[in-house]
Amino acid sequence: MIGKVLVANRGEIALRIIRACRELGIRSVAVYSTADRDSLHHELADESVCIGPPPAGQSYLNVPAIISAAELTGADAVHPGYGFLAENARFAEILERVGLKLVGPSSGVIAMMGDKAAAREAARKAGVPITPGSDGVCGSASEVKRVGAEVGYPLVIKASAGGGGKGMRVVENEGEVENAFLGASREAGASFGDGAVYVERYLTSLRHVEVQVLSDSSGATVAFPERDCSIQRRYQKLIEESPAPDLTEKMRDGLLSAASDLVGTLGYEGAGTVEFVVSGDEYFFIEMNTRLQVEHPVTEMVSGVDLVGEQLMIASGEPLAIPDSALVADGHAMEFRINAEDARRNFLPQAGPVEFYNPPGGPGVRVDSHLYAGYRVPPNYDSLLAKLIVHARTRDAALRRGLRALDEFAVSGPETTIPLHLAILEDEEFRRGGVGTRFLADRELVTEAGLLRLVRRDGSSAA
Amino acid sequence: MIGKVLVANRGEIALRIIRACRELGIRSVAVYSTADRDSLHHELADESVCIGPPPAGQSYLNVPAIISAAELTGADAVHPGYGFLAENARFAEILERVGLKLVGPSSGVIAMMGDKAAAREAARKAGVPITPGSDGVCGSASEVKRVGAEVGYPLVIKASAGGGGKGMRVVENEGEVENAFLGASREAGASFGDGAVYVERYLTSLRHVEVQVLSDSSGATVAFPERDCSIQRRYQKLIEESPAPDLTEKMRDGLLSAASDLVGTLGYEGAGTVEFVVSGDEYFFIEMNTRLQVEHPVTEMVSGVDLVGEQLMIASGEPLAIPDSALVADGHAMEFRINAEDARRNFLPQAGPVEFYNPPGGPGVRVDSHLYAGYRVPPNYDSLLAKLIVHARTRDAALRRGLRALDEFAVSGPETTIPLHLAILEDEEFRRGGVGTRFLADRELVTEAGLLRLVRRDGSSAA
Repeated sequence: MIGKVLVANRGEIALRIIRACRELGIRSVAVYSTADRDSLHHELADESVCIGPPPAGQSYLNVPAIISAAELTGADAVHPGYGFLAENARFAEILERVGLKLVGPSSGVIAMMGDKAAAREAARKAGVPITPGSDGVCGSASEVKRVGAEVGYPLVIKASAGGGGKGMRVVENEGEVENAFLGASREAGASFGDGAVYVERYLTSLRHVEVQVLSDSSGATVAFPERDCSIQRRYQKLIEESPAPDLTEKMRDGLLSAASDLVGTLGYEGAGTVEFVVSGDEYFFIEMNTRLQVEHPVTEMVSGVDLVGEQLMIASGEPLAIPDSALVADGHAMEFRINAEDARRNFLPQAGPVEFYNPPGGPGVRVDSHLYAGYRVPPNYDSLLAKLIVHARTRDAALRRGLRALDEFAVSGPETTIPLHLAILEDEEFRRGGVGTRFLADRELVTEAGLLRLVRRDGSSAA
Repeated sequence: MIGKVLVANRGEIALRIIRACRELGIRSVAVYSTADRDSLHHELADESVCIGPPPAGQSYLNVPAIISAAELTGADAVHPGYGFLAENARFAEILERVGLKLVGPSSGVIAMMGDKAAAREAARKAGVPITPGSDGVCGSASEVKRVGAEVGYPLVIKASAGGGGKGMRVVENEGEVENAFLGASREAGASFGDGAVYVERYLTSLRHVEVQVLSDSSGATVAFPERDCSIQRRYQKLIEESPAPDLTEKMRDGLLSAASDLVGTLGYEGAGTVEFVVSGDEYFFIEMNTRLQVEHPVTEMVSGVDLVGEQLMIASGEPLAIPDSALVADGHAMEFRINAEDARRNFLPQAGPVEFYNPPGGPGVRVDSHLYAGYRVPPNYDSLLAKLIVHARTRDAALRRGLRALDEFAVSGPETTIPLHLAILEDEEFRRGGVGTRFLADRELVTEAGLLRLVRRDGSSAA
C-alpha cells in the first residue's frame, strides 16, 4: 500500500486528493507556490513544501522542484490531479526513472493518448468509431485538401499534441484550408511545442458524452454510466451531468462497450475518460484523458464509488472491487463549475479577496472547493473556485435541487458564474435535456430585472 | 397540492424545510423571534413574519401569533419541524379547527402517542413487545411497588406526558420508590403540566434503535432501515447511524415489522419514528415520535429518499411512491450533532458571535446548518449548531470519512462538540460498533496533548 502521496496540484482538486488520502490512512504532501501560501490544500495536508513562485512554469510545472519535494518528504507516489503535469508523459517517465509511483497509467500510454492522431489510430484498431478524417497527422495544406475531398466540408483542423481549443480551426471550404492550416500549426507549435495537426469532419449539432473508466494493474476494467458535458463555453465545460439525458439504452451500451474495448487494448492502469461526440444515433471517439477529470464527482454521486480512493487503491496494486450495482446510475447528478468570471462583462477573470463565503447544504448537495472567507483568489491560475454537485432521484428533481443550491450559494468579492448557471437552469431547452455543445454559442446573455437570462440568437422561441 | 407552508420553527430544521419547499415549488413562510432577526431561515424563506421576543413561550410556542402569521400570509399548511409545537396535540387541534393543514398526523394520534402510557398500550395491542412494567399510569408509590414485586428491580419511573429524561427516575430497590415517585411526579408536572407517571423494568446494556416510517393518507406505510442512536449524553442523542451495526437480519426484520404493525393500527399520516430499546436479541417498544426527527438525514443518505419532501407530498394528499430499493440501506451513514457546548467544561452552553465558519465538503459529506460567519448564536434556544452527516459504502469507510470531515470542520467563536465527536470516533469499542446507551456515562473525558480522549471509568481496557 502507498504510504505517502505528493499532491502535485492546487485548488479544489488538491483538497479532493488530500481528503481521499486521509480517508485511506495515506499521508499527504502538498506542494504550493508563493501565491498559494494561504491556501487550504497547504493547510490540510499532513506536510507541505513551497516549490516556487508563480507562474506555474516556476512551481506547479517545475518538475525538478516537485521531484525534490517528493524526495525530501519521503513520498512514494505522486498524484497529479488534472491540468498542470497530469498528462505530461515526460513527467511520468521521470517519475518512473526515479522510482516514484505515478497515480495514473504508464508514461507510454500517456504519450500515446496525448498524441491525438495516434489515439485516433488506437481507437480505430480497437473497433471504436472515429470521425471521418485523416489517417494520422496532416503534414501540409494539400493533405488537408485531399481529406476534404474525401470526407466533405466543413472540416476541423486540430493540434495533435493537445486540446482545449488551442491550435483548432474550423474550415468551411477548400478556399479556407491554406490559412487555417498555417494558423493551426503555428498555434499548436506555440501552445504545445509541437505544430503537428490532424483533420476531422466537423460535425454540428453534437453532444459531448464521455465514459469514466477504471482499470487495475491486472487489466480488469469497469466503465461507469456516461457523463454529458455538452454545456461548454469556448470548449471549456461548465455543466456536466450523469446519466446523459435522452440517450437510448442501445447508445449507452455502445458507448460503454467502446470505452472498455479501447481501454482494454492499452494496458491501462488507473482512472481515465474516453470522450465521444454524439450526433443523432451515431457516436465517434474524440480523445482519451489519461487522468482524473474535473467532473468526476457526478459519477461518484450516481455510483457511490470514491474514484480518487479507487485511483489510490489501484496505484497500491489492489484489485478492483466495484460492485455491479455501482455501474448502473442511481438517480441523476449534475455539476456546476463556479468560476471567478464576470458573466456580465464577457467573462472577465476575477481575483482578489473573498469577503463572505457560505456554501449551500442540505440533502443531495456536495461542494468541492478551496474557498473560505478571507481567501484571496490569486490572478495566476485557472478560474475554478468551486464545484457544486447535486444528486436526486430524477433529472427533474436534480434541476430543482440545483436551482435551490445555486440560489443559496453565497460568495462575495469576486463575481462568479453562479448567475449564468441560474440562467441555464431556467432555459426550457436545457430543462428538456439533450442539448448540444453549441447551446451557449447560440444564445445571448441578457440582463432582466438584475437577473441573467439566455436568449436564442436566431430569435426562435424555446418552445 | 399545498401551495404555501408556514415553517413553525427556527435553526437548521427551519432551513431544511424551506429547502424542501423550494425544491417542490411550494412557497415558504418563516416565523422568527426578535432574537433570530439575523437568522438564515428568515432570509431564505419566501416570506417571513416576526412573532415575538424570546423565550419560546412568547414566540415559537405562541400559538395565536403563529396562527395569525399563517392567516396573514395565506399559508395553507404548517410544518412544525421537531421540538416546540411538533408534538403538541392542542396545537394540531387548533390547526384542524381553523382549516390549516398540519404536516403530520391528526391531533388524535399525536395525543395518543404523546401519552406514553397510552402508547405502550397501543403497542401491546398491536402485538409489539413492550418492556415489562405498569399497565398504564401508576397513581401512587404503592402501585409502583406492586409492579416492582412483579417485574423486579431496577425500575424506571417515567413521565407519561413527555420525554427527554424529564420526570424520569431510576429505582434500584423498593426502599427508593417513595422518593423517586414523588420526585418524578413533581418534575413531570413542572415540565409537562401533567404529573402522571408510569413504570418500566429498567434494562441495562441497552441500545437505542428506532425505525423511520412514512404513511400516506390512504394508510400505505413503509418502514426504512433502522437507525442506532445509542450515543447519548443525558438522554440527548449525539451520534446516530444507519443501519445499526451488528444487528442480525432477524432482529432487523422484527423491528421493521413491529414498527409497521403499530403504525398500521393508528390511522397514521406522515413521517414518524418508532423507538425501541434493544437488549441482546430482544427488543421492546419505548415510544413513538409523531414528527420528523433531528436524525432523519441518516435515513435520507442510505435510502436516497427526501423525507421532508415526502412529508409535504403526503400532506398534499399524494400517494407514497417509495421504490423497494430505497428500503434496503445503501451503504452506511452517520450523523454528528455539533452543539454549542464546551465539552471540556462540563458541556457549558455557548453563545455569541461565530467568527469563522467553513463546513467540510467533498464526497459523502452533508452539512445541515444555519450558521454563517458573523452569525450570533443566541442564548435562548437549544444548542444544535449543525449536523454533519457522512455516507460511505461501509461503516468503516463512514467512520474514516467522519473523522476527516470533523477534522476539517472550522467553527470559531463558540466552543462545540466537535472535539468530543473526534474522541468518540477514536474509541475502539465505538469503532467495533454496537455499543449501548451507557457508552458515554461509562467514560470520562480527559485532555491529552490538547485533544479530548475517552477513558473507561472502570479502568478496563478498550480491548
